[in-house]
Order: sequence, then structure tokens, then C-alpha cells
Amino acid sequence: MKLYSMPSSGNSYKVRLLLALLGREAEIIDTEYQTDSLAEAKTSGQLPFGKAPVLVLEDGRVLPESNAILSWLAEGSRFIPEDPFLRAEMLSWMFWEQNQHEGSVAVRAALLTYPHRRSQATPERLAELLERGHAHLLMMENRLHGRDWLVGEAVSLADICLYGYTHTAGEKGGFEMQRFPAINAWLARIAALPRYKGLDG
Amino acid sequence: MKLYSMPSSGNSYKVRLLLALLGREAEIIDTEYQTDSLAEAKTSGQLPFGKAPVLVLEDGRVLPESNAILSWLAEGSRFIPEDPFLRAEMLSWMFWEQNQHEGSVAVRAALLTYPHRRSQATPERLAELLERGHAHLLMMENRLHGRDWLVGEAVSLADICLYGYTHTAGEKGGFEMQRFPAINAWLARIAALPRYKGLDG
Repeated sequence: MKLYSMPSSGNSYKVRLLLALLGREAEIIDTEYQTDSLAEAKTSGQLPFGKAPVLVLEDGRVLPESNAILSWLAEGSRFIPEDPFLRAEMLSWMFWEQNQHEGSVAVRAALLTYPHRRSQATPERLAELLERGHAHLLMMENRLHGRDWLVGEAVSLADICLYGYTHTAGEKGGFEMQRFPAINAWLARIAALPRYKGLDG
Repeated sequence: MKLYSMPSSGNSYKVRLLLALLGREAEIIDTEYQTDSLAEAKTSGQLPFGKAPVLVLEDGRVLPESNAILSWLAEGSRFIPEDPFLRAEMLSWMFWEQNQHEGSVAVRAALLTYPHRRSQATPERLAELLERGHAHLLMMENRLHGRDWLVGEAVSLADICLYGYTHTAGEKGGFEMQRFPAINAWLARIAALPRYKGLDG
């Protein structure tokens, strides 16, 4: 398998993290923003939606979208609950992550850390993203209060997926993570999983 | 089952459409923007992420996020492919819909049709959304060129989910749908499915 992966992106990191947790290997092709490698991958037709991550299977089939790749790789593993309702709940968190959480938590970090996004980082935009991101993080905090994992009694793709951008929300996005003790305990729980690998690991 | 549903929203409509296609019934609770009904649903705690649609099961369990609800309702039906790779591809389109397509196609329609969003409908924003939405629609057009359905050889949740906002993209969002003949043929194919129901149906 080959993984087109953006080193700095939480969406790509989720996939690398799951591969590590599963003890599986893939050839990693780095496609960072504004590099020739990303431009080449785009013109090669290997990025159907124009962005990383994309998984290329041994037989050449191509799968885009981080959370779809997680679902494919985790098929039959402990990261997908057997109970159908828990599976649906897991998907709720994963769709919410792509539709809501990424749009505040990841976008604020991107505006603050990517030079090519800096012109969009107006004080008004940063303030609005801070408020919205804190509201999204509070939803996670409330959910995690008194429980170890987002869904059911065990770690699932919901946790892996939301870990991607949440674990750097303070450092990169400027969110006030000391407000969220249940999230911090959950982050530590994920970092303690066997074979865990960090963003730069 | 009860469905908290926003009559004007493509995300809520997707669920109503799938219920109709499956021949299943749910009590529909209308929660339109800026109505008491939506405010009551929010304070009742029945909308975990603060938005519709939400499905409430007979036993009281609550499931938010349109595409997770689709997955739950379609379990074991013809709308979810049996092949694991096709299932993963179906999820790719569904995550892309929530992460990319909704943010252009649905947002432009919302800015043009909801009075409380009108102040955000600046000429610059509308122009940017038009360009981005056309690019997203072109990805669908290219995919559907020479094929009947987005994934595999049969209708799946990928089609139901993307139909939600695409079928009103011209009328509500001002997108130039005559550019996209393969999308128009696909829209007609969905509208011809047995038990099909329109947005206001």
C-alpha cells in the first residue's frame, strides 16, 4: 500500500496513527503544501478530490478521504464496534469532525501556521474561529466527562479521528486547553495506546 | 422512531428521502430555523450537536448527523454495498459531501435563501462560493461521466447523500447546472426510484 500523506496535516496523521496502532506498514509519500511532490501527485490523478490523504491499494485502487481510509483499514479490528448502533454513533462523531470540528479547530491552526494562509488570518476571523472552536471542544468535553472514550466502552475510530486535530489545538491553534480536563485525560489515554506514534513520529 | 427534521435543509431531506425509499415511517418533528420548535428541541437535549437532523429510536437512543443516520437506517439494505471496498468508496463520497460539497453548494443556497444569513451574502463571498461550488460539481460530473451511480453499479447512500443539496443547486444556489449533463441524468435517475419523495413531498 502507498499513502499520499501531508506531514503537517491532522487528516493525514490520523491515518499514519491508525496504521501504527494496527502494526501495519505503508509506503508514505510526503505531499506537503506548496511542494513539487503535491503538484505531481495532483497531476498524476492519484488525488481524486485534489487533496491528501489518499490510500493506494496494492492493486492500484485509490481511496481518498481520511475517515473513509480509517474505516477501510480498521475493518474487522477492535477500532470498529461490533454493535450496529455504536458503529452508527462512531460515524456521527466522524461526520461531525469533518463538518464542524475541522472547520474551526483545524482551520484556526492552519491560518496561524501555514505561511500561504496568513493573509486570511484577520483578527475578526481568528476571534470567530476561537469562539466556535471552544464551543466544539466543549461538546467533546461534555461527552468525555465521566467516560473514557467517545463511543461505547472502548477506543474506536471516533477517538482516532478526533485526536488528529485536537491534540495540537492548544499549541498550533491557540485554544485554551486547560479549560477541558476530560479532553486532556482522553488525549493522554490515546497517547498511551500500544504502538502509538506522534505527529512527527 | 422520531426524526427532528428541518424542512428546508438538504441534510434533513436526505433522511426523509431514504425513509421513503425504504418504505419506513418515522414521526417527523419540524424544526425550522428561528422557530420555537427548534429552540425547544435544543433545550430538550435531543440535538446533541445543536442541529437537525437527529433520529430518536423507539428506546430513546439519539443519533445525530445526517450521514450517520443514513448508515444506521440503511444497514442490511441495497443502499449499502456488500463489497468492503465499495463501502469504503461510498464513505469517501459521504465524508467529501460533509467536508467540501456542503461548504460550497449548500452554503451558497443558504446565503441566498435564508433571511438570517443574508448579511453574509457579500458579492465577494457569493463569487467565491460559485467558483468553488462549480469545481465541486465538476468533480461529480467527471465521476458520473459514463456511469449511472457514484459507487459501483447500483444506487447507494453516496447518491442519496449527494442528491440532498445537489438537486436544488441551480434553483436555490444559482449554480449553472446546464454545464453538468451527467449530473442532470443522475438526478433524474434518483427521482425515478420507486417510492421517491421530493423535498416538499
